[in-house]
Amino acid sequence: MNASDKIWTAALVVIGDEILSGRTHDRNIAQLASWLQVQGIRLAEARVVSDDMDAIAEAVNTLRVRNDYLFTTGGIGPTHDDITVDAVARALGVGVVVHPQARAILERYYADKPGGLTEARLRMARVPDGADLIENRMSGAPGIRIENIFLMAGVPHITAGMLDWLTGRLEGGAPLISETVGCWTAESEVAGILREVEKAHANCQVGSYPFFREGRVGANFVIRSTDREELDSAVDTLCEALGEEGYDFTPGGI
Amino acid sequence: MNASDKIWTAALVVIGDEILSGRTHDRNIAQLASWLQVQGIRLAEARVVSDDMDAIAEAVNTLRVRNDYLFTTGGIGPTHDDITVDAVARALGVGVVVHPQARAILERYYADKPGGLTEARLRMARVPDGADLIENRMSGAPGIRIENIFLMAGVPHITAGMLDWLTGRLEGGAPLISETVGCWTAESEVAGILREVEKAHANCQVGSYPFFREGRVGANFVIRSTDREELDSAVDTLCEALGEEGYDFTPGGI
Repeated sequence: MNASDKIWTAALVVIGDEILSGRTHDRNIAQLASWLQVQGIRLAEARVVSDDMDAIAEAVNTLRVRNDYLFTTGGIGPTHDDITVDAVARALGVGVVVHPQARAILERYYADKPGGLTEARLRMARVPDGADLIENRMSGAPGIRIENIFLMAGVPHITAGMLDWLTGRLEGGAPLISETVGCWTAESEVAGILREVEKAHANCQVGSYPFFREGRVGANFVIRSTDREELDSAVDTLCEALGEEGYDFTPGGI
Repeated sequence: MNASDKIWTAALVVIGDEILSGRTHDRNIAQLASWLQVQGIRLAEARVVSDDMDAIAEAVNTLRVRNDYLFTTGGIGPTHDDITVDAVARALGVGVVVHPQARAILERYYADKPGGLTEARLRMARVPDGADLIENRMSGAPGIRIENIFLMAGVPHITAGMLDWLTGRLEGGAPLISETVGCWTAESEVAGILREVEKAHANCQVGSYPFFREGRVGANFVIRSTDREELDSAVDTLCEALGEEGYDFTPGGI
């Protein structure tokens, strides 16, 4: 494998009792996954853990060593259940300090707001010792980068702003590209065809995603690859095979 | 701690490249979490892993021993990327067999469908040796139970049907109940109040979930407990404290 073939991977730790209680539907797994694809980085694993120091530290320490990047979402706000900074510092064996630039950002942000920069709000300037900041264009408190770890907000539109700022700043490989072919058939009817297509194209993964719509069963077949030529060839093979068997299929997906 | 105080926990392994690619938004974490709460079982952790034997087996083996129950969603269909049964069998060190009752169910289900019971479809009768079935009221292929592991469908409405069938069949503890108080304030303004309420009520957890709506910031404070009396007392304490400070709050949430 030469350097350009390296597969860059990331993991995500979603932090929050609100996700594990079912109260809040996570949207950051899908959001980060889509963003990573464009950066040429693959999301290898995601974990949802509770607002618990040991649980967060364990997940962070396991996943940061086996991936190029580790992201966390949630738990960097001003309230007592926001313990991500402390947990990551513990995982790394470093202290927690107030970041002067973060403090300055918060001072400006809260200058004209009721209450001003309270002690609780100042918590959002705390970072693991040695960290840099990730710009937050949506609200005051910045995200945090330390080593290969990125601590992001839990609220999806704030996370989105932080990802936007990070765009192009992380090294990645060739972006994973995909094509979809939809077909009005039960996936179980064409399982053999899918298997053959994947076998014949070593650099492609073929996924099958069934649905039930308008009273009929169907499936979308998604082919993923970092190689455009291989991808196109796999799509052609699949469409030919479906056509030969008389299936009603739609390049681009249904 | 006496037996009735036992906290029952479960973990979830969501299996599928389609979630990690961002193509499909997971809905099973929230669905399972909500269902578990009613059974008196707490979702302690969720992991999303790829369609990879080792990744699935590792997550299953780690989480099944530290929880009372382990659920998986996804990867039990008829196509080549459906490898959950094989991965769980490997994790448990048992073989894979065709379950006679599952085979009979599939024979009936596909009797009048185009193609009949193909080899691919018969894959859905394969189970880790020693497993029982979980009824699937929505489509043919059943879910699978072996030891404390429950293998469920990935398609949310099929998962829902399986959970419905499991309702009342799993031992749990006292259900976690919750109350919400909404407030038109930045959560950072009232962080001190929240911390005090939680400190004063050992059996309650207080979560704070900020939002930005109608041009104003606000937050919902969710108090969770297995003890109705403690919960009500914590809500009263919170509302009193918010009232004394002149905040605009709404019992029941905003």
